Amino acid sequence: MVAAADVAGTVVRTPLLPALWDDALWLKPESLQPVGSFKLRGATHAVARLDPAVRARGVVTHSSGNHGQALAYAARAAGVPCTVVVPEGAPQVKVDRMRALGADVRLVPPARRLVEAERIVAESGGALVPPFDDPRIIAGQGTLGLEIVADLPDVDVVLVPVGGGGLASGVATAVRALRPSAAVVGVEPALAADARDSLAAGEVVVWDVERTYRTSADGLRTNLSELTLAHLRAHLDGIVTVTEEEIALAMARLARDARLVAEPSGAVAAAARLFHAGELPAGRTVAVVTGGNVDPAVLAAALG
Amino acid sequence: MVAAADVAGTVVRTPLLPALWDDALWLKPESLQPVGSFKLRGATHAVARLDPAVRARGVVTHSSGNHGQALAYAARAAGVPCTVVVPEGAPQVKVDRMRALGADVRLVPPARRLVEAERIVAESGGALVPPFDDPRIIAGQGTLGLEIVADLPDVDVVLVPVGGGGLASGVATAVRALRPSAAVVGVEPALAADARDSLAAGEVVVWDVERTYRTSADGLRTNLSELTLAHLRAHLDGIVTVTEEEIALAMARLARDARLVAEPSGAVAAAARLFHAGELPAGRTVAVVTGGNVDPAVLAAALG
Repeated sequence: MVAAADVAGTVVRTPLLPALWDDALWLKPESLQPVGSFKLRGATHAVARLDPAVRARGVVTHSSGNHGQALAYAARAAGVPCTVVVPEGAPQVKVDRMRALGADVRLVPPARRLVEAERIVAESGGALVPPFDDPRIIAGQGTLGLEIVADLPDVDVVLVPVGGGGLASGVATAVRALRPSAAVVGVEPALAADARDSLAAGEVVVWDVERTYRTSADGLRTNLSELTLAHLRAHLDGIVTVTEEEIALAMARLARDARLVAEPSGAVAAAARLFHAGELPAGRTVAVVTGGNVDPAVLAAALG
Repeated sequence: MVAAADVAGTVVRTPLLPALWDDALWLKPESLQPVGSFKLRGATHAVARLDPAVRARGVVTHSSGNHGQALAYAARAAGVPCTVVVPEGAPQVKVDRMRALGADVRLVPPARRLVEAERIVAESGGALVPPFDDPRIIAGQGTLGLEIVADLPDVDVVLVPVGGGGLASGVATAVRALRPSAAVVGVEPALAADARDSLAAGEVVVWDVERTYRTSADGLRTNLSELTLAHLRAHLDGIVTVTEEEIALAMARLARDARLVAEPSGAVAAAARLFHAGELPAGRTVAVVTGGNVDPAVLAAALG
């Protein structure tokens, strides 16, 4: 397991937490990673796998969200330069955090993000590290699945949020390899159910941003890629969708009864178990809490 | 390490979390225990050490707080009956939780708590398990110190909240035994600084409830016992106090930047590092986040 060895030391080995309200549920709190999300796994693995000649030239990405912070952290831990191209108008707190982690942050007009990242790669000779559409990222996220099976060898069901599909691809591949009888089920907001549609159609179905911006789960608005769809078709057992109200109730439950701060995207798997258990396979279940980078006002509102 | 073997399986092996805002700080999040606090360690160890003849007769306590929930959980896990004597007027949510864990909850007038617990013990032949004034409890809480040194062998400073002193006694004893060069420093609210006064006086100094009720850190209002004072005199390197405002700011910092829900008592060690670093020894520091059972409205207010 090369990926597992690569992430040790930088990535926190998160525990499985028994849920007090459900005797057959465990939570995998990736919100406890230093940058607040599982994205650190893929970023750390991608940095570790860099060609030695490329390392000194650095890594580049164009995500302003959790992946940008994760890559900045992983690059700093490995002593590799990192450039993040961020659209003008991104929240200042995210820009500040990436700069505090030593990243060279370049603000550009939103439409120029990808072009600018590719220009920097061409100029610097560094490596582009995309947020999910990359075998190194998928393998890194898969370390989360290895840990679940190591800590709960008789797991029956793993619930994993689906955005671009990198995490779901890695976890489904790892869990099904180690424990073929376990089911891995994806969870999406009903307002961004593009992966459900893609799996039904057998091809990438795009929900455009005019539709997906309505969900509070901003980390799950992304569409699948050909690569992640292929993984999910091969290894995922199904998709369940949850409503916005269910997401808010799950955030409150996680804060009150599991003492975890979850962002909306991080609460969807717990919401599926709380409100859609009848649509899920029975048995010992793990819900992945993918991240906790939530606006404090949004958390306070969910607690109210 | 008998205590460590006793708690494995019921107690979560909490990770050390690097704090993003402080390169020399790690958090030990006991808020992630199934009942939301470190109290599960001592309770689990005390139940495991019961005389076989006493086990079937059960355990009894008179704490309505975190210890009552912890003992109910530990007893259920071990198949031991549990009775908790609770003062009338205690929050219904706490009573409900203990009952959900299978405890026999007896509501009595506040002044009759201890008498009633002792009456039940005399009648049933079970064992009284007090919240802190007990060598089994202290040894169980000490497992937290063992884990800190195992995960960060070159730790320099451990910051631990002090209420009745059971946790501080166990952690100071364990950490100083395994790593004599490390300092263990207690942290108290300035509004409940009885342990500071007791260490200065060399005897238990009692702050009565009319003074200590003013702190939001309700878990730290308790005074030391002769037993815990003796441990702290032998092994603790000092006491730092924090203000109510510092506690609230630390709760907000833990929620926003470490994605942890901490109760006020659970935030004091992080507050000491944030606001009183100049009074502390330098070096690689662990702050114990002891618990997360906070009223959602109090958390929401701290976030605002």
